[in-house]
Amino acid sequence: MSELRKDPVINRWVITLDDKSFKPQTDSKIPSNLKVLDNTCALCPGNEEKTGKTIFSVNEPDGIWKVRVIPNNHPYLTVETQLKRKGVGIFDVISGTGANEIIVDTPLHNVDFDKMDTSMVVDVIKTYKDRIMDLKNDTRLEYVLIFKNRGIRAGSNSPHLHSQLMALPVVPKKVTEEMEASKEYFYFKKRCVYCDLLENELQMKERVVKETEHFVTIAPFASQTPFEMWIVPKAHASHFHKMSESEAADMAYILKDSVTRLNKALNYPSYNYMIHTTPLKQPDQDHYHWHLEIMPRVKSIAGFEWGSGFYINPTLPEDAADFMRRV
Amino acid sequence: MSELRKDPVINRWVITLDDKSFKPQTDSKIPSNLKVLDNTCALCPGNEEKTGKTIFSVNEPDGIWKVRVIPNNHPYLTVETQLKRKGVGIFDVISGTGANEIIVDTPLHNVDFDKMDTSMVVDVIKTYKDRIMDLKNDTRLEYVLIFKNRGIRAGSNSPHLHSQLMALPVVPKKVTEEMEASKEYFYFKKRCVYCDLLENELQMKERVVKETEHFVTIAPFASQTPFEMWIVPKAHASHFHKMSESEAADMAYILKDSVTRLNKALNYPSYNYMIHTTPLKQPDQDHYHWHLEIMPRVKSIAGFEWGSGFYINPTLPEDAADFMRRV
Repeated sequence: MSELRKDPVINRWVITLDDKSFKPQTDSKIPSNLKVLDNTCALCPGNEEKTGKTIFSVNEPDGIWKVRVIPNNHPYLTVETQLKRKGVGIFDVISGTGANEIIVDTPLHNVDFDKMDTSMVVDVIKTYKDRIMDLKNDTRLEYVLIFKNRGIRAGSNSPHLHSQLMALPVVPKKVTEEMEASKEYFYFKKRCVYCDLLENELQMKERVVKETEHFVTIAPFASQTPFEMWIVPKAHASHFHKMSESEAADMAYILKDSVTRLNKALNYPSYNYMIHTTPLKQPDQDHYHWHLEIMPRVKSIAGFEWGSGFYINPTLPEDAADFMRRV
Repeated sequence: MSELRKDPVINRWVITLDDKSFKPQTDSKIPSNLKVLDNTCALCPGNEEKTGKTIFSVNEPDGIWKVRVIPNNHPYLTVETQLKRKGVGIFDVISGTGANEIIVDTPLHNVDFDKMDTSMVVDVIKTYKDRIMDLKNDTRLEYVLIFKNRGIRAGSNSPHLHSQLMALPVVPKKVTEEMEASKEYFYFKKRCVYCDLLENELQMKERVVKETEHFVTIAPFASQTPFEMWIVPKAHASHFHKMSESEAADMAYILKDSVTRLNKALNYPSYNYMIHTTPLKQPDQDHYHWHLEIMPRVKSIAGFEWGSGFYINPTLPEDAADFMRRV
């Protein structure tokens, strides 16, 4: 039995099946014999000269880095490019102005968040916040997208844990869609759709994976992919970077918890995560609620998904949440 | 040097690079030693009993099929399911009502369109039209999406050429986006954005791959992926299935031509194509123009693309068009 489920925010429908025979594709399990330090890895300590200059770092008292931000070797966008907008025939073009940074999450070559102390994850969250606040000063930029590619199927060849950042002169399509749809919901209901969603999920409980003081991890009702999770702050908050220190500590805890559950459940699958937050220049918004989306890359995307924006999810989010709660 | 290009229709930006070092990923080349007839292939003649009943076919005068439509073995949606719409808490759900059919494009196990006679491709186009016209009679259905997954990276494990069809009780997100954006363009300009686009491309010529009497194949200005192509009818037309016989013959010719160029240029890459047309229940629309999008799957999609709806295309569409014109 299949059904079509609508994402509660945007106009995206997902076909959910209850296919117990579905096998998650996990070809990019991290080798267990990885060294803590790999001399050939550009992200490992000792090889700092192989990468560009350090843009930002969180350091130990003795000056050794714990988190390090460097420019992408082959950046897609650079702040050195002058911002120009032009029309070419009927087309619209903007110069490649922006930034493309690598956030090295840890000096250790062989770990994911599940093997790291929560305090180390706090440093990563702190770095995300700091980079957004710094890039916000460049008034040419409209958005900073923070995301992670983990494992080959998720687009990363390096086993060394890192996040990425793209600073953009336009707001990305998916964020615009969420902003517009949640604004419309607010117009009708005078409530934030994400707040409504959380209240609903906390009451029903069946899609809640973990709840902490400030956050909830859920398997979204219309998950695009098996074992998708969203980490959502419980109190309404539109800007990720305005999180307090205690919230950041709690977020590090629940992010580590979610990644640990995912790695246990699916034996270190490839995954992406991305933070959706309010665009840099917008004030606090009653209608929009920042969140982090975790997408395990355990199922390939074919023509139907490309052509339609529809997704087919063989695993019921309720079953995924139940499994993730118990691992 | 990179730049950001906006899709002329919807609000999607693409970062285009001019990266001559980019190597298309083509791991799913068709083995050259494939038999014409494979006894183990469910889509080959002689194995008809391995699949469900024939829904439609185009036959030789002696009754042997040339194109055959069968139900998907494990359909995601079925017409037997009663259409029900319901709310679950704040969520919206529709029953899995619809259809999911396989169109076997040819009896031959080992060919793509490049090795088929144009008249055989005409039969495939005719089948697409016929299936849409038949399914249109089921008033519960809102859309028929016709698409193709070719090769492993495109989501198909079978070397036997086939297309697919999903009949849906809602209009897919990407089509809705195109419909709404082209409506807005029409509101301002009183012209169809696709007609404007074609006029522009035919004048500039640099992104035109092929022009026939009724159609143009272009490398779109804001291609999401290297060697992306759109086949667009030159005269304004909103419904694919209303094409005349002579237009269908011409479309078969240009579709075969485009696939041939793609297979020559990239040595049989995986690719998807999908037809975007006006929803079943809508009358002819001045603002919307049907087209077919071909997406070679030669570059993986990572967290940035998932999280943003942005795409990074390492190959300039002008260079791709030039290369495709010359192969």
